[in-house]
Amino acid sequence: MNRVTQRRPASVIRADGSVTRRRETLAGEEPLEIRVNGKPLAVTMRTPGDDFDLVAGNLVSEGFVTLPELLANMRYCGGAIVDGTNTYNVIDAAILGLAPDAISERRVVTTSACGVCGTTSIDEVRRQSHFPPADEDFRIPAATLLALPDRLRESQDLFERTGGLHAAGLFDEQGELLCIREDVGRHNAVDKVIGWALREGRLPLRRTILQVSGRASFELVQKSHLAGIPIMSAVSAPSSLAADLAEEVGITLAGFSRGDRVTIYTHPERIDAG
Amino acid sequence: MNRVTQRRPASVIRADGSVTRRRETLAGEEPLEIRVNGKPLAVTMRTPGDDFDLVAGNLVSEGFVTLPELLANMRYCGGAIVDGTNTYNVIDAAILGLAPDAISERRVVTTSACGVCGTTSIDEVRRQSHFPPADEDFRIPAATLLALPDRLRESQDLFERTGGLHAAGLFDEQGELLCIREDVGRHNAVDKVIGWALREGRLPLRRTILQVSGRASFELVQKSHLAGIPIMSAVSAPSSLAADLAEEVGITLAGFSRGDRVTIYTHPERIDAG
Repeated sequence: MNRVTQRRPASVIRADGSVTRRRETLAGEEPLEIRVNGKPLAVTMRTPGDDFDLVAGNLVSEGFVTLPELLANMRYCGGAIVDGTNTYNVIDAAILGLAPDAISERRVVTTSACGVCGTTSIDEVRRQSHFPPADEDFRIPAATLLALPDRLRESQDLFERTGGLHAAGLFDEQGELLCIREDVGRHNAVDKVIGWALREGRLPLRRTILQVSGRASFELVQKSHLAGIPIMSAVSAPSSLAADLAEEVGITLAGFSRGDRVTIYTHPERIDAG
Repeated sequence: MNRVTQRRPASVIRADGSVTRRRETLAGEEPLEIRVNGKPLAVTMRTPGDDFDLVAGNLVSEGFVTLPELLANMRYCGGAIVDGTNTYNVIDAAILGLAPDAISERRVVTTSACGVCGTTSIDEVRRQSHFPPADEDFRIPAATLLALPDRLRESQDLFERTGGLHAAGLFDEQGELLCIREDVGRHNAVDKVIGWALREGRLPLRRTILQVSGRASFELVQKSHLAGIPIMSAVSAPSSLAADLAEEVGITLAGFSRGDRVTIYTHPERIDAG
């Protein structure tokens, strides 16, 4: 069974009253439970495919792993059986050197009743990066940045078929694509890219640009920060907190990147206008 | 301070090398901690505004409340002080008749180690609706459905200024707007609409159509289901699991609604083509 996309019958109704029955290709969406050392960490809705990248990237984004050798292995849980078949919807990641209660401690921290009172709105959801701040001397021509949305789209295999997937692409300073991942979830697409980088031993991602297909939220900037990415560019708008965080941690944040123009919200010194 | 939007300086770089400095309006994004009867339930990133609607809708989506009288009150936590000012980022909701351990039990259920194994992928994330299935005799002309994206956009106040907000609009069978809410998060926009309906005593939302600005994911269909909404329409693509759930629970799911045409994925019997 192809689980990345799914075909199903649909009716297209036009304003003139005509109806066409046809089979449409939909982006796959299934839950994935992530476990760490046998303990449940999270359930995320995702497009099946590149699952190990997704889990690895999620663990980087959650601050659990920064070195590939700490991620001893990942495996699909053999007990997740429906109708005699493994669902491939549960992955257990073995992390070395993690305190036995790190997972349950983490849960307590994120839900503690009074942890929020008295902290600033950014602080309460912030994770600290394990890497030094992104390099200040990294500069790219604006033309390189402006070319990325088209390159992302050209490489976006599934979107063409489903119209329903977000993409994240990692590019080098020449604008060459290093890795692209797609998912129904914006965050998952970025996690898949960062997980790929962890597994390839490429963290921190110095001198790279992350181009995303949608908007730039706080959480995407935070993921870039935790992976050491110096420039993040979105096709659509950033949020206020995304810009606040990018400013603070030294990330160049670009938005509304539309081929002929792009808006730079923070740290414009990395972009040479031309 | 206006927290719904935020203005900040930015540089627009064009392909010809010109650079324009100007102030841009960004969609506000801040964390909101939701507590129930004093116990922390969740932290969500949201656009400030209509916070009580958001909390109420979240509680409906989580299956905690179906009647407005059960939601005794909601208040901003007085202890969430930064620099001598309430952050308005923590809300405590008082729910009547809730077992003292309902919140912690719920947490255990969603994170139980082996609850996932052996269940189907939909079942494991499904919540049961408290309402009977949506009415089968509810039918609308395709023209009514086709008109909704434009009506949503016309009423979408913040998007025009920020380009970065999702909208959800609830319409009656004549296509008249009942309620519109916006947020950086797609789910939050829908929760705000459903929370408004709960607080207005309108649940279940019979004979209504929910139009959303983006894509249709599993979770949005689930929220519609829990609120009793019979027709859900998205401007962009649905996911496979969104269509699976809509089919199963009797919701008419429309996608790619673009004014001159719309695709009906499930239960087309509610839409009269012409």
